[in-house]
Amino acid sequence: MPRYKLLIEYNGAPYVGWQRQRNGLSVQETVENALHLFSGETPTLFGAGRTDAGVHATGQVAHVDLTRDWPTGTVRDALNSYLREEGGVAVLDAWKVPDTFDARFSARKRHYVYRILDRRPPPTVLKGRVWWVWRRLDTERMHEAAQRLLGTHDFHTFRSVNCQAKSPVRTLERLDVVRFERDEVRILASAQSFLHNQIRSLAGSLKLVGEGHWNADDLVAALEARDRKRCGPVAPPDGLYLSRVDYDDGTPASDEADAE
Amino acid sequence: MPRYKLLIEYNGAPYVGWQRQRNGLSVQETVENALHLFSGETPTLFGAGRTDAGVHATGQVAHVDLTRDWPTGTVRDALNSYLREEGGVAVLDAWKVPDTFDARFSARKRHYVYRILDRRPPPTVLKGRVWWVWRRLDTERMHEAAQRLLGTHDFHTFRSVNCQAKSPVRTLERLDVVRFERDEVRILASAQSFLHNQIRSLAGSLKLVGEGHWNADDLVAALEARDRKRCGPVAPPDGLYLSRVDYDDGTPASDEADAE
Repeated sequence: MPRYKLLIEYNGAPYVGWQRQRNGLSVQETVENALHLFSGETPTLFGAGRTDAGVHATGQVAHVDLTRDWPTGTVRDALNSYLREEGGVAVLDAWKVPDTFDARFSARKRHYVYRILDRRPPPTVLKGRVWWVWRRLDTERMHEAAQRLLGTHDFHTFRSVNCQAKSPVRTLERLDVVRFERDEVRILASAQSFLHNQIRSLAGSLKLVGEGHWNADDLVAALEARDRKRCGPVAPPDGLYLSRVDYDDGTPASDEADAE
Repeated sequence: MPRYKLLIEYNGAPYVGWQRQRNGLSVQETVENALHLFSGETPTLFGAGRTDAGVHATGQVAHVDLTRDWPTGTVRDALNSYLREEGGVAVLDAWKVPDTFDARFSARKRHYVYRILDRRPPPTVLKGRVWWVWRRLDTERMHEAAQRLLGTHDFHTFRSVNCQAKSPVRTLERLDVVRFERDEVRILASAQSFLHNQIRSLAGSLKLVGEGHWNADDLVAALEARDRKRCGPVAPPDGLYLSRVDYDDGTPASDEADAE
């Protein structure tokens, strides 16, 4: 039974999140429906990142087992032909992988981008795709403070009350804050895994630093308090994108040869 | 009676176009409604570019006369507070200008960007913001062919049946085709003024060149035929953005000092 790895992009706005839920349509269910229409089977799709309602992805990865051995280009194109009507999800690429590959548990590193529209006028073309912060942010100050959070820490302050992870300890490998064009600020976060709401909690706290309400010491003190009440306001899902997931199994991040 | 110049951004998708019409809400009417709520007056707003339904703008310019002499920051912020609910239009900046300034007739040059998502999977995050072309486009071939259209020509082939311009002669100053990141192609067009649907007509014809259906000579032959039936398929409005309008009056393209 061949296992397929799928590279998936979605606009998170219309969905209840990645994971199948009773209260509405999820991205997982949307792709599973397309898999059913394509193959006649009812397989379960396993994703690398269980993104929340409203969170986007440009590089989500999932795996699924199908009975038949399809050409990967056929899997990708057929799924997209069923997904097109839905309009919010697309399969960017598909590969065959060994059945030891698990999108969630084999992931070596997850990369997220948090986009902030940093200007006085509200967003129009980017509405729902960014967090609107109208006070001018000091991105150098944010970046410097962010560097003090790198490494292995108890991130309890920066996780959701609903976080189901047994341990609040995570290793943050990258937390860069960069100005992207004049009015956009991007936070680039990488780790093997994140706690629930960790990046949105960090983004909200870094905003306090960028506005001058907090300094780097305040951010570190919040971390060390291990107290969710010390977290800044949690940033909205609109600005968050799961941008890439790395694996050790040699599967390329994207398959140029198969892209045409 | 002070005249104000406004720099306006909008997502064209929900509107019937820039110009006030009976069949639905226009961008002009949306801003005029905000002007009324703000000032109590019922002024007419004059725009530099009468963009079609679904066409976006990141740099539309308009002028309006108000009785009172408001600080320009107040005009911008008050309009945005009324526009926020609408969610599709924002005023990026406001200036006071001499009453000889006319957003439409003083414009020296208009700049448009046409965005194409050039990949096999359909758009998700960029749905409604780009034209999806799934065949890989040869952008060098497109760019070279485009250069043969520069200068002053009768562009009758590349205009709408509804174009109201008396003369079909226009001077095309720039028509660049560039690949922007791996999967996006941008067409950058500049001229003092354009005919109705001229850029969408050119984009559709350049797509035929990029796919290999036309060569540069075919494009020139279509121009010289002065026959709308020789035009390629007109590209959809989704990918078109009015990005900038230049004036000779010394008004800056954006006012950094006033941005905060």
